[in-house]
Amino acid sequence: MGSRSDPTTDPALRSWVPVREGSDFPIQNLPYGVFRREAGDPGGIGVAIGDSILDLAPLAGEGLFDDSIPRPRALEAPSFEGVLALGRPTWRKLRGRISELLSAGSREIRDVPGLGERVLVPLDQADLALPVAVRNYVDFYSSLEHASNMGRMFRPDAEPLLPNWRHLPVGYHGRAGTVVVSGTPVVRPWGQTKDDDDSAPSWEPTRMLDIELEVGFFTGAGNQLGTPIPIQTAGDHIFGLVLVNDWSARDIQRWEYQPLGPFLGKSFATSISPWVVTLDALEPYRMAGPVQDPEPLPYLRADDASAFDIELEVGLSSAAMSERGFSPHVVSRTNFRSLYWSMAQQLAHATSNGATAGPGDLFASGTISGADPSSYGSLLELSWRGTRPLVLPDGSKRAFLEDGDTVVMRGWCGDGRERPRIGFGELTGTIVPALADHLADGRPTIQSPRE
Amino acid sequence: MGSRSDPTTDPALRSWVPVREGSDFPIQNLPYGVFRREAGDPGGIGVAIGDSILDLAPLAGEGLFDDSIPRPRALEAPSFEGVLALGRPTWRKLRGRISELLSAGSREIRDVPGLGERVLVPLDQADLALPVAVRNYVDFYSSLEHASNMGRMFRPDAEPLLPNWRHLPVGYHGRAGTVVVSGTPVVRPWGQTKDDDDSAPSWEPTRMLDIELEVGFFTGAGNQLGTPIPIQTAGDHIFGLVLVNDWSARDIQRWEYQPLGPFLGKSFATSISPWVVTLDALEPYRMAGPVQDPEPLPYLRADDASAFDIELEVGLSSAAMSERGFSPHVVSRTNFRSLYWSMAQQLAHATSNGATAGPGDLFASGTISGADPSSYGSLLELSWRGTRPLVLPDGSKRAFLEDGDTVVMRGWCGDGRERPRIGFGELTGTIVPALADHLADGRPTIQSPRE
Repeated sequence: MGSRSDPTTDPALRSWVPVREGSDFPIQNLPYGVFRREAGDPGGIGVAIGDSILDLAPLAGEGLFDDSIPRPRALEAPSFEGVLALGRPTWRKLRGRISELLSAGSREIRDVPGLGERVLVPLDQADLALPVAVRNYVDFYSSLEHASNMGRMFRPDAEPLLPNWRHLPVGYHGRAGTVVVSGTPVVRPWGQTKDDDDSAPSWEPTRMLDIELEVGFFTGAGNQLGTPIPIQTAGDHIFGLVLVNDWSARDIQRWEYQPLGPFLGKSFATSISPWVVTLDALEPYRMAGPVQDPEPLPYLRADDASAFDIELEVGLSSAAMSERGFSPHVVSRTNFRSLYWSMAQQLAHATSNGATAGPGDLFASGTISGADPSSYGSLLELSWRGTRPLVLPDGSKRAFLEDGDTVVMRGWCGDGRERPRIGFGELTGTIVPALADHLADGRPTIQSPRE
Repeated sequence: MGSRSDPTTDPALRSWVPVREGSDFPIQNLPYGVFRREAGDPGGIGVAIGDSILDLAPLAGEGLFDDSIPRPRALEAPSFEGVLALGRPTWRKLRGRISELLSAGSREIRDVPGLGERVLVPLDQADLALPVAVRNYVDFYSSLEHASNMGRMFRPDAEPLLPNWRHLPVGYHGRAGTVVVSGTPVVRPWGQTKDDDDSAPSWEPTRMLDIELEVGFFTGAGNQLGTPIPIQTAGDHIFGLVLVNDWSARDIQRWEYQPLGPFLGKSFATSISPWVVTLDALEPYRMAGPVQDPEPLPYLRADDASAFDIELEVGLSSAAMSERGFSPHVVSRTNFRSLYWSMAQQLAHATSNGATAGPGDLFASGTISGADPSSYGSLLELSWRGTRPLVLPDGSKRAFLEDGDTVVMRGWCGDGRERPRIGFGELTGTIVPALADHLADGRPTIQSPRE
């Protein structure tokens, strides 16, 4: 997977499409997304370049992908599941061809009258949709620092890590159907909660609404039922990465989660960034991950460097800050490379029992926390269960999220000067107040809208 | 939802299609499935009647559903997700029309030359496919007896039930992508296991392969994100029921499941019966469920009877028994009506935080165990952790499943004489040996077939 021989990641490459300095989307990136030009539009597959989206379907219609993609109809669908199914050799050809079409010397688009206008859509005039209808969503727990912090807070008298943690990437299934795209408002959920000294649970809106800073990957190609994906080829099944905010209601989660794990405390919404950054674009930022001790079992042993040097940042704005035009206050900075279990290990483990993985599967890292308290990936850790509230620039304090708060996550590789900036764009979400007195007396205050 | 006024469930109703005495599929049932006439056929939506399948698409093509279904293309798809999306008023119209077309007095099908031959497919000449591509799979833990048995076995010195169990239907997400149709072979999974006195985990095929006898329901219509389905209308969202065998590798599950719940111990396969029995067909068998103490919170309180009187049975055949033509040995008999938490409560709870549910969502009950040891729904309970092995008619003993074992689950309402038999057909699965020495040295013995 040598990046040096891959012309699409060459730092010297430039596009004829204008790209601002500091843009997340230079020609070395070329992330995929699904966009709508207007409401009701079924959606098209696009690639971000500078402040524009390159619309792939009309390019296919002009025959510009003939050699690079065997099934051009995959580019016409309102999700890119068809692209995911193509597999890495075709992903590479397609990426190579898009890079070629956009590179400074190419006139193939510009030479067709009107084509440039048809295929380049200003980013600020498009709605970005969920890029893939998520069919399975697995959430891991792969940050050593996060798992240790959770242990320290909730089992203070025991070893922070449970005995299995260093032997396998602990994970569980989340709700695929509530994975939503960046910008989707998050309604504060009602739920059952119970404090230790309460005799019975209460029904109330969560008072401990939290974020989880994560990175997820989408798979393609895939395996057949009963046939695991070995770790040596796991990377071939990873199409690309997104930022993930796994919203969590800690009080609901705490009461419900024994013995089968989190359920309603996390199933109300999981937000992902709209642009899927390909593993091919990230190759120059591949590096060795943390040393694993004890050495994992053979089926989890990889020879290759399998971590990626992705900077991550979480910003938070109160409603007052948003109204007054303040920038989000950065509450956490960390890096994806610190993750103990690699994506390849996660995928090999998840399929080691013969379970399938393929197009539409999203695997997320779990909360990414670094060693330093300023690098924790959840408010639960940042405020240490509310004992050390964060102070925002408007003077307000935060243990957990309040209504009107907006969370903005960002991720990127490279400094944008010596090394191209491979950015993820923004992952945002704003908290909407809970429904009023919802179901508290056993009668609905509102009906399900489709009834 | 009064069954007395519903002509489709009238015990006196007869069909012009022959129906054997004791058939699971009299005209009062009319379950939906997806079938293929031959390999490679994209699949059609059918309704079981006696020993035949009524193929719906050609009937729609003849215009025979004009008044009952607004979107006849829903009947042409290779899954019935489109039917699920129609909602209960249309489900009722469609069911009423199919009942009318099949009832003894009707000549509408028989009067069109050749139509009867085109639309009636012998059951034994068709392959039954997964009826719905499952988009979300939730598994509950709603049997008081099962949850208590698990507590007694794994926490012998504590209260069998955890504190939350009587306050909410405990549940978690399973892997939607590995829900498979009856008859799919189950490959014994490899996995990490660790006994208490081992210093490190082993990598081996599971030695504790188990079944879980469950009943699941598919939803349709559905809600919008952020808007719960109130319990008063939850029944309107339940299309129909299937039998579920949630295969479980107890040794893998035991080592991995803390703190986030089951993952690989259950994700290798979950089998469902091919025919979805509608809630409308089951209405005559609706009855009051167990008394709930303490009374649940208001959002989980329903006025209606919400249990269903469904007999359940598990049979087991060793390879030797299958070869010698023995019938499966019945190892458990129980009833769905004993379930502590109702389907309506499960659905209201699962959406109480605003999570969506809709077409493609499968909600399963969790293992259904009765009070008597002969009514337990898993081998773990039936053999009491292997301390009381079952004895099969060929003299062999079983604590857990062996290679070549076939499990057959059945479910039905009614005696078939005074009350029509509403049956689920069979849910079967045979255990296939684990892959040889798979990945034990870190190298794959086989490649993923699609690479």
